[in-house]
Amino acid sequence: MKKYAIIVAGGTGKRMGESLPKQFLKLGGTPILIHTLQAFYTADPEIELIITLPKEEIQFWDELNIWHQNYIEHKVVPGGETRFHSVKNALEHVSEGLVAVHDGVRPFVSAGSINQSFEQARNHKAVVTAVLMKDSVRQVDENGKSKNIDRSSLRMIQTPQTFDVDLLKSAYNTPFNSSFTDDASVVEAYGHSIILIDGEYQNIKITTPEDLIVAKALLKAK
Amino acid sequence: MKKYAIIVAGGTGKRMGESLPKQFLKLGGTPILIHTLQAFYTADPEIELIITLPKEEIQFWDELNIWHQNYIEHKVVPGGETRFHSVKNALEHVSEGLVAVHDGVRPFVSAGSINQSFEQARNHKAVVTAVLMKDSVRQVDENGKSKNIDRSSLRMIQTPQTFDVDLLKSAYNTPFNSSFTDDASVVEAYGHSIILIDGEYQNIKITTPEDLIVAKALLKAK
Repeated sequence: MKKYAIIVAGGTGKRMGESLPKQFLKLGGTPILIHTLQAFYTADPEIELIITLPKEEIQFWDELNIWHQNYIEHKVVPGGETRFHSVKNALEHVSEGLVAVHDGVRPFVSAGSINQSFEQARNHKAVVTAVLMKDSVRQVDENGKSKNIDRSSLRMIQTPQTFDVDLLKSAYNTPFNSSFTDDASVVEAYGHSIILIDGEYQNIKITTPEDLIVAKALLKAK
Repeated sequence: MKKYAIIVAGGTGKRMGESLPKQFLKLGGTPILIHTLQAFYTADPEIELIITLPKEEIQFWDELNIWHQNYIEHKVVPGGETRFHSVKNALEHVSEGLVAVHDGVRPFVSAGSINQSFEQARNHKAVVTAVLMKDSVRQVDENGKSKNIDRSSLRMIQTPQTFDVDLLKSAYNTPFNSSFTDDASVVEAYGHSIILIDGEYQNIKITTPEDLIVAKALLKAK
């Protein structure tokens, strides 16, 4: 069965306070996005890799790859206005089988997690990695009042989120809605239920300068 | 106005896979719990410090302190069966004013955060530090079905949680309930509302070996 991975790299570097978008920042000498590509290649070299990047960053990315020794074959697709539009664009290059959607700035995803995600998606069609909450959680209403929520019922959602290609393509034909924070929410709005599988705490999303410090420590510990 | 901090150190090291309880593990040569004491001392040397520790660890802690150069004056109170019982025991050594309750394994709390917490508690009586969720969140029901939740309404709760002493003592007179995951939930069950103030992502709770790697990186970056 054919396998694809859409790696969404839409960052512009604003939150990082850096001029370089976060996906290009280096970890141990290698841009984050290349670490992420390597993670999928290591899990299974047969996975067809598609990266979505803001249009104005594609040339820079091509140049990055020229000098990088461990070039991994992949397609580059221009991103859209939001994450939803980027994934929708990338899906035009996907035909059949299974597709994992993954954040470009989650380079620490394990091979085990990627492969388990595809394995489960064969049967369940919509599989999302998630971890338990470590902290207590409160929900705030429009007046600023908050109430305790039972954290054991909550899961922090990660990527990869892996789907049957036909299902994901159909779901992405629904009109855009601002409540779509990830692919699971798009598929759910389309009426298909989601299966959660265990993610890993190390699979962090690098979005702030502090995350980058943590990422460097995790890389060293690998 | 008198200020106290109850620093709850109840860990037994099980989750760490180590024989030494996590609060005694070293960061940059100094046990985590001593870093935490120092954070409060740095914020305001007038804060009266009370540590709760499992009975069987108190002797070890005393010995640790003997060799540690930067001894900070504090009281040690034996912990109870749960966090609730530990805080309740510690409250017997608190008489009036304001009291912050803090996790012993959150050594990166800033002086600013501690002082702001006391400042706000003067007016609001029940003040809790919290941060926004970075990841999408799903809620799982008893059948394993999950649904997307609007993460902008959720807050991850940290410590310090700072209270008017009379209020917290009264709240801790309610019988124990397993839904009490922190002090805010005890005070809320007693019928008093909670004010949230901005916490800091760096104020992590060190509970797994991975957290310790992150903590070492954060310490280096300080």
